[in-house]
Amino acid sequence: MPTGVAILGCGTVGSAVAEMLLNEKLLLKKRAGRSFDLRHILVRDPARPRPGIPRRLLTTDAAKILHDPQVHIVVELMGGIEPAGTLIRQALSLGKRVVTANKHLLALHGVDVFRAARKAGSSVCFEASCGGAIPIVMALSRGLVANDIDRIIGIVNGTCNYILTRMSDGQTYAQALAEAQSAGFAEPDPTMDVRGTDSAHKLAILAALAFGVQVPFEKIQIQGIDSLDAVDLNYGRELGYVCKLLAIAEKINGYLSLRVHPAFVPRQHLLASVGGPFNAISVFGHASGQTLYYGRGAGGRPTASAVVADIVDSAMGTADVLFRELPALAGRSPARIMPPSAVVCRHYLRMQALDQPGSMHRITGVLGKKGISLAAVAQHESRQDSYVPLVVMTHEAGDGAVTAALRVLNRLNCVRGKVSHIRVIDPAQAV
Amino acid sequence: MPTGVAILGCGTVGSAVAEMLLNEKLLLKKRAGRSFDLRHILVRDPARPRPGIPRRLLTTDAAKILHDPQVHIVVELMGGIEPAGTLIRQALSLGKRVVTANKHLLALHGVDVFRAARKAGSSVCFEASCGGAIPIVMALSRGLVANDIDRIIGIVNGTCNYILTRMSDGQTYAQALAEAQSAGFAEPDPTMDVRGTDSAHKLAILAALAFGVQVPFEKIQIQGIDSLDAVDLNYGRELGYVCKLLAIAEKINGYLSLRVHPAFVPRQHLLASVGGPFNAISVFGHASGQTLYYGRGAGGRPTASAVVADIVDSAMGTADVLFRELPALAGRSPARIMPPSAVVCRHYLRMQALDQPGSMHRITGVLGKKGISLAAVAQHESRQDSYVPLVVMTHEAGDGAVTAALRVLNRLNCVRGKVSHIRVIDPAQAV
Repeated sequence: MPTGVAILGCGTVGSAVAEMLLNEKLLLKKRAGRSFDLRHILVRDPARPRPGIPRRLLTTDAAKILHDPQVHIVVELMGGIEPAGTLIRQALSLGKRVVTANKHLLALHGVDVFRAARKAGSSVCFEASCGGAIPIVMALSRGLVANDIDRIIGIVNGTCNYILTRMSDGQTYAQALAEAQSAGFAEPDPTMDVRGTDSAHKLAILAALAFGVQVPFEKIQIQGIDSLDAVDLNYGRELGYVCKLLAIAEKINGYLSLRVHPAFVPRQHLLASVGGPFNAISVFGHASGQTLYYGRGAGGRPTASAVVADIVDSAMGTADVLFRELPALAGRSPARIMPPSAVVCRHYLRMQALDQPGSMHRITGVLGKKGISLAAVAQHESRQDSYVPLVVMTHEAGDGAVTAALRVLNRLNCVRGKVSHIRVIDPAQAV
Repeated sequence: MPTGVAILGCGTVGSAVAEMLLNEKLLLKKRAGRSFDLRHILVRDPARPRPGIPRRLLTTDAAKILHDPQVHIVVELMGGIEPAGTLIRQALSLGKRVVTANKHLLALHGVDVFRAARKAGSSVCFEASCGGAIPIVMALSRGLVANDIDRIIGIVNGTCNYILTRMSDGQTYAQALAEAQSAGFAEPDPTMDVRGTDSAHKLAILAALAFGVQVPFEKIQIQGIDSLDAVDLNYGRELGYVCKLLAIAEKINGYLSLRVHPAFVPRQHLLASVGGPFNAISVFGHASGQTLYYGRGAGGRPTASAVVADIVDSAMGTADVLFRELPALAGRSPARIMPPSAVVCRHYLRMQALDQPGSMHRITGVLGKKGISLAAVAQHESRQDSYVPLVVMTHEAGDGAVTAALRVLNRLNCVRGKVSHIRVIDPAQAV
């Protein structure tokens, strides 16, 4: 008996899932041992042409879908908080299994959605919410189930990684963004991506899974890539680093630190080799040591690969068992979040310093006063300007101290404009 | 109610699993929602001191273990074909769930073992048989279940990768092997590792899973690293390549090509960055595109991480469902194997050629006659010798043609000794 499926939303991912269910029946039978009956697709405008998708499947009537007794699995691919959240809750209460790729909803309301699923004796699968085709939800919750997870470091936004890769090739931020948009790797409105919000959504989900806690989204420190200057990526490269937008969750002294920010990664590290639209997530377990998962983080077919795997899991009944049994999905206790200011790492600073006796002395004085010690300083020569670029690499220093120092430096007369600041991941930390 | 577990074998992995089950009860309760009761460990010599493992658990009596009604899961970590195979079959017929890390047994007799499990209505979990801590079995069979897999390229033997990494740093093969042995990364008898057999065992298992076929082990083309010369790794580096022992399974024109051999991988490729004892497996799915999985491929605790994940899956009952439902584990049809001679790739050749008019002409003549066209040739200068190193990089050429050409070249008067031959992975193929 084929399993009845309905899809809510028919954008890039929704239509890719529909096409797999419609056109790859033989493959699914061979690989998953199952047949699926795609019964409905919820759309806003049924008149819009959708090549390859039969018109009779399209409907604007959510109630019709949710009350179809032959729909076993509801696949939510609309995105956003509403109406997706309400439809998922209704589907669960009507006994449907739910599969979703909705990172935004789960990051903000995952605890509630999961509670509704448990109450209904059903399950919510969400492999496609993080890392596209990469089976990272499965790896964290099941493959590494025997591990106390210490740290997750990931590149989880393909748009930003594409832009940073192009900036490393010499483009400006604006050029790289425009190219990403025309190549289909960035949305017309890229705000959620380039400001780091999308990465933070995924981090919230991954951290909840890895650490078995409730993650308060608003406590995640978030900095995007939209204020980066290609000049700094160039200096970083000369120092042996590649700039990546990282999502980091780690246990530090009983606290959980959660942060999204650009960072310099040592060139020889695996994360530094992750180029273009790819994602990669490094997970450090107490028994496994480091494992890393790499693949396409977005796009119709890669994401559909994860959605259909979840549909198979739901149809087999294993999703229900895992959902009921694995405490990682219950998130019983709220996380104790470490204040961002207490996080310690090395820092790269670059400023335009007045080329005049005393400048260096004043700048290093500000850093010294905040307890920030210098690992390397390079003042570059300039013949056309009375201001010269001064690049500073610090030893490990608290984020709070550096932020405080930056406030002072930005007001010094001998510093022109704003000081560039990029955090640095040490090889020891990254490997 | 805790789930009863028995372990067969108490070597590096067996003792690590025992320690996790005995000492990490709180963690397992928190992460997996379960308690386990380790009831027996089968050993050869109960008198041998095993710190941290209570003497009362040790026994030499396999029948006692298999007939204990409170043992729900039998974990086979003895390795080798017998008595492991017989004990696994007995355990299955007595209604036990089996977890094993035994790649040797599964590569040669997996079809039989899985058939016995299905007949008994039980399951065999084997995540730890390939890639140590990396959840690659789960990724191939479940995470990528919606994909038609085109190709797997992996570094699946940590011993060889450690040796090759050290050889790239300038050591000879013998030095690197000795160091690997003293660092605990190579067995006292490293034959199975360095000759490629262990990699082929893992490839047989991964290919069966990925392609849903029976893999005839004896048809895998196997070449190890024990005849590599560090000189060639050095020339390769100058050309932008890193040498890795690769296990490759790929579909070519309806056939399955299965091979283990050293290969030059482009430096910028992710597999080139996999150093020391780490493993990495690249999988190309028709929907997912490339995904890659990286982690520690051996060692007590990393492997125990995978074994305990399987124990959890068995205890939850999900292993039984997956085993029953997923055709990938049934391997119904035998694979149509492509003859190794038909595989096409680029080739690196290096020979000591007589520094005399006509040498180059005769050598290139041999290659031309076999239809092998040259992409690059470099003859290095030598002042002390009448023979000079000649390095040839071919365009794509069939393995059979190159093998035939090597036979001729090795007999030429103007070539001293044996021609070095390393296959080359192209960037396009690798990414």
